[in-house]
Amino acid sequence: MPLTDQQADEIAAARTQHTPTARPTVPALEAMLYQVTPVLDHGFIRVIDYMGDDGAIVQAARVSYGRGTRRVSEDAGLIRYLMRHYHSTPFEMCEIKYHVKLPIFVARQWIRHRTANVNEYSARYSILDREFYIPSPEHLAAQSTVNRQGRGDVLAGDEALHVLGLLRDDAARCYDHYTEMLNEDETGAPRDPSRRGLARELARMNLTLNTYTQWYWKIDLYNLLHFLSLRADAHAQYEIRAYAEVMLRTVEAWVPVACKAFRDYRLGAVTLSAPMLTAVRRMLDGESVAMEDSGLNRREWTELMAALGRG
Amino acid sequence: MPLTDQQADEIAAARTQHTPTARPTVPALEAMLYQVTPVLDHGFIRVIDYMGDDGAIVQAARVSYGRGTRRVSEDAGLIRYLMRHYHSTPFEMCEIKYHVKLPIFVARQWIRHRTANVNEYSARYSILDREFYIPSPEHLAAQSTVNRQGRGDVLAGDEALHVLGLLRDDAARCYDHYTEMLNEDETGAPRDPSRRGLARELARMNLTLNTYTQWYWKIDLYNLLHFLSLRADAHAQYEIRAYAEVMLRTVEAWVPVACKAFRDYRLGAVTLSAPMLTAVRRMLDGESVAMEDSGLNRREWTELMAALGRG
Amino acid sequence: MPLTDQQADEIAAARTQHTPTARPTVPALEAMLYQVTPVLDHGFIRVIDYMGDDGAIVQAARVSYGRGTRRVSEDAGLIRYLMRHYHSTPFEMCEIKYHVKLPIFVARQWIRHRTANVNEYSARYSILDREFYIPSPEHLAAQSTVNRQGRGDVLAGDEALHVLGLLRDDAARCYDHYTEMLNEDETGAPRDPSRRGLARELARMNLTLNTYTQWYWKIDLYNLLHFLSLRADAHAQYEIRAYAEVMLRTVEAWVPVACKAFRDYRLGAVTLSAPMLTAVRRMLDGESVAMEDSGLNRREWTELMAALGRG
Amino acid sequence: MPLTDQQADEIAAARTQHTPTARPTVPALEAMLYQVTPVLDHGFIRVIDYMGDDGAIVQAARVSYGRGTRRVSEDAGLIRYLMRHYHSTPFEMCEIKYHVKLPIFVARQWIRHRTANVNEYSARYSILDREFYIPSPEHLAAQSTVNRQGRGDVLAGDEALHVLGLLRDDAARCYDHYTEMLNEDETGAPRDPSRRGLARELARMNLTLNTYTQWYWKIDLYNLLHFLSLRADAHAQYEIRAYAEVMLRTVEAWVPVACKAFRDYRLGAVTLSAPMLTAVRRMLDGESVAMEDSGLNRREWTELMAALGRG
Repeated sequence: MPLTDQQADEIAAARTQHTPTARPTVPALEAMLYQVTPVLDHGFIRVIDYMGDDGAIVQAARVSYGRGTRRVSEDAGLIRYLMRHYHSTPFEMCEIKYHVKLPIFVARQWIRHRTANVNEYSARYSILDREFYIPSPEHLAAQSTVNRQGRGDVLAGDEALHVLGLLRDDAARCYDHYTEMLNEDETGAPRDPSRRGLARELARMNLTLNTYTQWYWKIDLYNLLHFLSLRADAHAQYEIRAYAEVMLRTVEAWVPVACKAFRDYRLGAVTLSAPMLTAVRRMLDGESVAMEDSGLNRREWTELMAALGRG
Repeated sequence: MPLTDQQADEIAAARTQHTPTARPTVPALEAMLYQVTPVLDHGFIRVIDYMGDDGAIVQAARVSYGRGTRRVSEDAGLIRYLMRHYHSTPFEMCEIKYHVKLPIFVARQWIRHRTANVNEYSARYSILDREFYIPSPEHLAAQSTVNRQGRGDVLAGDEALHVLGLLRDDAARCYDHYTEMLNEDETGAPRDPSRRGLARELARMNLTLNTYTQWYWKIDLYNLLHFLSLRADAHAQYEIRAYAEVMLRTVEAWVPVACKAFRDYRLGAVTLSAPMLTAVRRMLDGESVAMEDSGLNRREWTELMAALGRG
Repeated sequence: MPLTDQQADEIAAARTQHTPTARPTVPALEAMLYQVTPVLDHGFIRVIDYMGDDGAIVQAARVSYGRGTRRVSEDAGLIRYLMRHYHSTPFEMCEIKYHVKLPIFVARQWIRHRTANVNEYSARYSILDREFYIPSPEHLAAQSTVNRQGRGDVLAGDEALHVLGLLRDDAARCYDHYTEMLNEDETGAPRDPSRRGLARELARMNLTLNTYTQWYWKIDLYNLLHFLSLRADAHAQYEIRAYAEVMLRTVEAWVPVACKAFRDYRLGAVTLSAPMLTAVRRMLDGESVAMEDSGLNRREWTELMAALGRG
Repeated sequence: MPLTDQQADEIAAARTQHTPTARPTVPALEAMLYQVTPVLDHGFIRVIDYMGDDGAIVQAARVSYGRGTRRVSEDAGLIRYLMRHYHSTPFEMCEIKYHVKLPIFVARQWIRHRTANVNEYSARYSILDREFYIPSPEHLAAQSTVNRQGRGDVLAGDEALHVLGLLRDDAARCYDHYTEMLNEDETGAPRDPSRRGLARELARMNLTLNTYTQWYWKIDLYNLLHFLSLRADAHAQYEIRAYAEVMLRTVEAWVPVACKAFRDYRLGAVTLSAPMLTAVRRMLDGESVAMEDSGLNRREWTELMAALGRG
């Protein structure tokens, strides 16, 4: 369901109202403000508001009286130091607010991150849109045979067609029965005046988990980066990763220095345990180290080899 | 789906293993430990563990060296004082852990309470049971005509039958297609060896929101009482209230003094605004006060009259 | 210690840099931005940044596509409804950041509010200013004789002079010994080159609790209002109340509709327990109710009479 | 100030009251329960209560019906996997409560960890003990000359004597003036009946930051391990590390498998950024890599060399 004309007008109006502010402003993020970035087949992400910029991180770290910035290189050095050493509080001084439309099963993963503020569209109070997520063929993956929590190859041919048909038909039928049970037209009047209509808070239980919901979600930069480190990661489920990748681009526009440090020190980083470090030191000393005499079990050894790009 | 024999055996075994402890112990709650209390048609609540008792509240409030208790009446007076004045930290010193089986749409309301610890059964990793919530006829309510977020009278006759049929059929069909798409038997082997099976993390999206999930949920007493004040309240949706009422009984067994204070000062309490208090004072002075000259709008006036048991 | 010239310049510079933004902007709060509002003898509060306005509350409550506002009266009605019924999440969508200079013993009360972000000036890393809080004579209160946690009348005459002298001399002597132990001049070089200088992280332990510290403190509107309901209250210690009152004025400039609702429904509000309500109903029915037959204990009865403006 | 006889009796009484429980019980931690473990010169740590054990971690991870344990080796493998991959929620299912006596400047560092429950002894309500932390000579460190936030060598000879004298005299004088201003004897009656006595909430501001306070502190295992990873680390200030080391021993008694995994995967672990990993890969390929062509700045290079035990 594309935006209604009224929604598009409201967004356009919000984008053109400019007022002067003495707060830190980030032109690259202003350019994105309120705009719909599509995600999956019917979802989206919109940046609604933000507080702070790269300068606000150093300003808080220094408890400054002014904007807190010194020379650009000095500020960047401090931000990179704080990121590398997992400092939390200076990054908490920046805040961002999103409007997100997402399938319910994705919302259920997402909400596990508790350090954020959420206002979800209430299906107890209102009626959900007729929109459900149907994977595109290249994301219709089989169960992984090596990892209980993962995907294997993509389904193809008749099996893919069959699965897509089931998903589409079940979601549509459940939604149609939802509106039938509600028995309301767009004005709230009964569609069939001869009967009552089930309470909204009950009727919603007939919807499938790929039905779209939406929410306002507000979070500080530190916790957002933690969210992204888990959800923009290759091990995250594709459907939530699609959202995380769009959000990572908004972070890049918003706090480019912190985002670069995040990519360098977090996204591509690997934590080596003490026994792993010992094994690496032995290798660097020229020793030939095998799993058996490494002090690591098979799983750890495999993880270490992957980190070192061997095996 | 009743407990499997193995589950029943595990519960029975846990209930009979007793060890001595120097920690505060509450016999009435010990008697409930691990047992299944059914809620709704397939759900349950089980108390898994607890920390502290009524004495632990006064012990923390006094930062005591010993058990912290003095005379019973003195302790009760302190607990009641702390409850009446919304003190939080002494009640945070008690903790309880539940195992809960609940429909997904209830889980989504529940999880909005963020100050708790949760481990949910992962449908990304495992396969959900074939269980869905179908309201009993007396809870099959029509949409309220006066409150957009509420229930009216119960549906009856053919309409009730029709709605129950839709709920039952849609949930069953969606579940059956879920297992068809998964294509796994109980051992994890393919049911139909000629095809692959959709990834679990994808197949789950075909389930309806009344499918049951389960989780471990751990919370401190202060936040639990806040949860109960909202969810054991008459305005809460019936389905979550059914859980809250069972939990309230566990709190009664666990910390009877705090629970009594909670019932007296919270559950039946009403907050009056400054303008409402002014109106009450005028009434007590013998003035006849009408909505028009009360300084309250219609909604506030109605709320005040309800609190005072008038009108 | 007044602002240094450099600090004053930095503040002035920040106040004059205006950039256009499409975010909600509040002129009355912009006018306060960065400015020092003095609190106590050497403390201050400065608003550093903010996110959202009254409109952002209704926008989130409605999960709107645009700015979320409708008619002014409709928005105000919704905000007042949300406030009266203790809704939390829409108010969490506004955020504010302060720079605060405050005595350490006030900071220790303040930090008990955990749902906020803090960056404190580090005395492990830097050297604190030579500033300590000395109460003005009208705040030099004796211990209350009726309330173990409260103040009675003001000390006068010689006793007041004696107390003020002790506070002033001890703080000054401790600070002077702090710098003597540090043995650093303003450039970090040793004042006395013949000795080393104690580590900053140790020397700070010699300071008295009225020494001033400073921090950046960021919080959402919901939790800020909770803070203010406790700390702008007559039962709060005067020294923290002085800060709360200044912050309440910033909230008034920022979200006037929410602030009015807060004053009406929270600041002057009283919660009546079920037994208290029963007593009030009996009184309104014309019964003469005495403490003895009210079902309330002495403390509760006194609290009820105070709420009703009787006795 | 050693324990009073009454305190010692209360502790002894609590240690000997044993009751049977069906909850998980850990004998090694039971043996520590309530006992005072001294820390610094007048501080201590006491374990007051706990919930859960190693088995509770796997029980929650599996959302089990019974105790959740399988074979010992399988459980340990799961716990180690969860620890290595920074899973949080299963470790949050264990909880521990401490009674801690600690200098105020240590309490101020400690309280920055917000995800915990705290009840502090109130100097607004009660009178603090006459106890202040004076470092032992081997911990009387000079300011580091290479790290603004660190210690260098130990002060010696006359300088040490002088510093210790200042710390001791200032703390004692400030405390004596505190009691003089309070003007209360042990029963609360005025010591000098001719004057009033300053309010406790004000008098406390005259105390130095090395005065001891005490609190009850309750935290889940996940957040406790995060606290210990920062505070039991060599970079932590010695005075808080002394507490962290005692707590680490209680964790060892409580959840030995999780604690071993924590030591292996967290305490000795090092996170390598993507550019650091690239440098290590090149070295393992036999390349000679110098700082200049490593893509790392001096600080990063030094950190990498330290991690690899080179240079």
